[in-house]
Amino acid sequence: MFVKNVWYIAAFDNEFEQPFVARRLLDVPVIMFRTSDGVLAALDDLCPHRLMPLSSGKRIDDELQCGYHGMRFSAEGHCTCVPGQTNIPSAATVKTYPIISRHGFAWIWMGDPTLADADLIPDMHWHDSPDWAPSSGYHHINANFTLLNDNLLDLSHETYVHHRTIGNGEELSIAHYPPEVTTEANCIVRAHREMPRIVPPPFFSMTLRHEGLINRWQVAINLVPSLNITVVGVHPVEQDRASAYIGHVLHLLTPESETSTHYFWSFIRNYRLDESDLTEIIRKGIASTFDEDKIILERQQKQMEVLGRQVPGVAIRVDEAPIRARRLLEQRLKDEQENPSYVVAPPALIPEYSYAQ
Amino acid sequence: MFVKNVWYIAAFDNEFEQPFVARRLLDVPVIMFRTSDGVLAALDDLCPHRLMPLSSGKRIDDELQCGYHGMRFSAEGHCTCVPGQTNIPSAATVKTYPIISRHGFAWIWMGDPTLADADLIPDMHWHDSPDWAPSSGYHHINANFTLLNDNLLDLSHETYVHHRTIGNGEELSIAHYPPEVTTEANCIVRAHREMPRIVPPPFFSMTLRHEGLINRWQVAINLVPSLNITVVGVHPVEQDRASAYIGHVLHLLTPESETSTHYFWSFIRNYRLDESDLTEIIRKGIASTFDEDKIILERQQKQMEVLGRQVPGVAIRVDEAPIRARRLLEQRLKDEQENPSYVVAPPALIPEYSYAQ
Amino acid sequence: MFVKNVWYIAAFDNEFEQPFVARRLLDVPVIMFRTSDGVLAALDDLCPHRLMPLSSGKRIDDELQCGYHGMRFSAEGHCTCVPGQTNIPSAATVKTYPIISRHGFAWIWMGDPTLADADLIPDMHWHDSPDWAPSSGYHHINANFTLLNDNLLDLSHETYVHHRTIGNGEELSIAHYPPEVTTEANCIVRAHREMPRIVPPPFFSMTLRHEGLINRWQVAINLVPSLNITVVGVHPVEQDRASAYIGHVLHLLTPESETSTHYFWSFIRNYRLDESDLTEIIRKGIASTFDEDKIILERQQKQMEVLGRQVPGVAIRVDEAPIRARRLLEQRLKDEQENPSYVVAPPALIPEYSYAQ
Repeated sequence: MFVKNVWYIAAFDNEFEQPFVARRLLDVPVIMFRTSDGVLAALDDLCPHRLMPLSSGKRIDDELQCGYHGMRFSAEGHCTCVPGQTNIPSAATVKTYPIISRHGFAWIWMGDPTLADADLIPDMHWHDSPDWAPSSGYHHINANFTLLNDNLLDLSHETYVHHRTIGNGEELSIAHYPPEVTTEANCIVRAHREMPRIVPPPFFSMTLRHEGLINRWQVAINLVPSLNITVVGVHPVEQDRASAYIGHVLHLLTPESETSTHYFWSFIRNYRLDESDLTEIIRKGIASTFDEDKIILERQQKQMEVLGRQVPGVAIRVDEAPIRARRLLEQRLKDEQENPSYVVAPPALIPEYSYAQ
Repeated sequence: MFVKNVWYIAAFDNEFEQPFVARRLLDVPVIMFRTSDGVLAALDDLCPHRLMPLSSGKRIDDELQCGYHGMRFSAEGHCTCVPGQTNIPSAATVKTYPIISRHGFAWIWMGDPTLADADLIPDMHWHDSPDWAPSSGYHHINANFTLLNDNLLDLSHETYVHHRTIGNGEELSIAHYPPEVTTEANCIVRAHREMPRIVPPPFFSMTLRHEGLINRWQVAINLVPSLNITVVGVHPVEQDRASAYIGHVLHLLTPESETSTHYFWSFIRNYRLDESDLTEIIRKGIASTFDEDKIILERQQKQMEVLGRQVPGVAIRVDEAPIRARRLLEQRLKDEQENPSYVVAPPALIPEYSYAQ
Repeated sequence: MFVKNVWYIAAFDNEFEQPFVARRLLDVPVIMFRTSDGVLAALDDLCPHRLMPLSSGKRIDDELQCGYHGMRFSAEGHCTCVPGQTNIPSAATVKTYPIISRHGFAWIWMGDPTLADADLIPDMHWHDSPDWAPSSGYHHINANFTLLNDNLLDLSHETYVHHRTIGNGEELSIAHYPPEVTTEANCIVRAHREMPRIVPPPFFSMTLRHEGLINRWQVAINLVPSLNITVVGVHPVEQDRASAYIGHVLHLLTPESETSTHYFWSFIRNYRLDESDLTEIIRKGIASTFDEDKIILERQQKQMEVLGRQVPGVAIRVDEAPIRARRLLEQRLKDEQENPSYVVAPPALIPEYSYAQ
């Protein structure tokens, strides 16, 4: 079950340097391209004639040509040519989806197209702002997106899963600073944790160029159904919070199917903006970290399938934020089922007080 | 669903230089061999004792010996030896199928054996005639045979699927010469197309050794359920039709299962008969062409399975012959279901007027 | 269906030099380790929190730590630590299984733990006796264990399956010496065969260092549900039976699932005890022989699944012992179903008269 009336990330903007991008979204195979007018188009990746994926054919100007019999379709899904005949069968159309480019992402609306209001796109402006520098990437995860939400809202796993990267191997330092969990506007869960005077994990001592004790804070944020941000702040204990190195880690999830997820991510920093080497070091570090999560998440998904059981089997304290987010998601699914026009305008996800003491 | 009371191709004759040939036909695993008397035998590929394929054992003289306990079976399916005992259990028999060698092929009858009349074998004499030269091969296709029938009866796909080989990249030249489609004797569909004064596709300019305009004609013929012939004629516009280079392309399909097909093919020409180099060039060219079809057909089959839908989803003009053949096939299946003794004597597939103006 | 109230082999003792062994037994994933006290522990390989296999985490002292959130479990299955909280949820326990080290094997009891009496462990003392020398190994077989029982109780297949190793290629020598089959104590089947004055198969002429005629005897023994021993005796015809080279081949089967089996084996000999080269030659020879069986058994399993049929389809004389063992197994399953406390104390499997004339 997926929330339908919401904007999902379909691609990074820069993927449209290719003729087209084909991707399964919410179990629907979609083909997307940027027309010569610079606007995006999204269609079912399916020729209505013999069910061939249009992505097995080719793009000709602003049309898609099927690779079997040469039928062509416009960005609006209209058939413009059936080789061998002049009349176009009225049933020869392809479904389209609203798609918009914003903040460096392509946002797609898989629900009722009459509700696709661009004002409902959440604010992710840091991703293409001159005041911030992004390190971006993509992971394909063979697990339901809720397992990723769980993972991202419960940062205590860092000690065990990421001890080589962002975890620090000292169990007490992270696991014993319980987060304060809050719910907001029936669509946001936040888990905020302060970790004063800790030994910096390898990743942070590298970026800070500092080996001594640091103050660190983390806020894990989930916007129903599947957008997540982790705010990460660190500074040496000798300095004050206003000087902190801050990162906004965008974890933008789009269900591919009930058992797989597109994971678009971007680590966005407010420091050392012009250092492209650092941008690349961070990108590689994050990619390795999420490789570690991928292993855990896919194993968990497989166990659930084999055993026919749900998680958590036994709830512990670190499940507080994940369970709250699951409840908001269930409510949203119910709301949408009861009222097919139900939409939610997302509030701002990162309040100003995140940036300083 | 398969038509049962009909002769299918089981193998090329020359495959029987091996001790035996094992192949799944109409979902039945069959083992076949040529006895020392020169006649063919076909049995279920299954030892009745412990269900081992007989093809996992070995052939000893004109008998098959199971590889587990050494039980032996004759070409007639009788058990001739059970090691360790002298009496033979009456249930220790293996089902046999009528199988006949003709025109260089092994023809098998999977239906009621009492109806297996050799006179019902269609005429494919060109395949072993001194007046014709064959280039033969085999493709295994993971698609239902009806998708191959569709493909072979609708040659408009050549422009898009085979633009590197037999299609010529000029959409108008093929797609805009609609074929004349006729039905005959409730078991044959023909789609006949004349293409006068066209630029020769690469394959034909190579065989004709001629770069100028040509006259070309094609007749796609389907005999229910799964034998197809494409008659291809070409000659330079300066010459008359009686001098044409003619090819009969036999596309002899046998269902392996509901989702896979044995595709025995042979391109038979009436020109440059003694040139074995040309025979090999044609064989390679045809094999590459059918590799292109294989990709399309298997993708279509997979799409049908994933989507749970039939083809064509929307019918266009090029579907006329395929749809007629599908209707004849459905009627034949119904006839056989209503009358288990129903058989059809196939008329001649290629009339004399195919050879000249 | 599996007999539950019985001791199965879970591992060789020497596998516990590793921190832990994870293995699916009777369809249950189990993790096992030897504690610092030297005793074995066996638990469900499953963290109750998020269903992760505990074998994806690590062992810390005598506890298992989950690799996702660091929860720890003792050898008794008690949760001893939940990072981030001091109270332990009462549901956070892991099921344990009785497990005992004996004769060089780890024996596990997957049934009612209150019935797990160590006296019910069958005698396999040769495996760690100074009077015998073992050559041991393990095969994973993708087939139900009853197909292995069948195979081991019917040694006539050696002629056809193992003609390169223990079979001798002379069909008459083995197949025509029918075994005497007896049943004992409702849980043992024996098939005893004497083969006087035969040409030695390659394996035996190698171990005996003798090319002339030999006397050979075999006793195939099955203890319900899945322990098998083959007693093999050979001596040159010129010598008497008391001098025979005797091997006890232990084939100790544990179902992994309905369609796969753990095959722990050990060839134990009473001759040339100190020759470690011979131990290794025998180990390699046996491994190759069982590779041949693996092919046959897995093909048979696959055929049964594809065809939806049971074996034997037709019974022949060599099936006498296998069919008797299948009947005892069915009776045992029925007994256990009717009386969940039903257990059987296994009698001695190899009587003294096996050793000499």
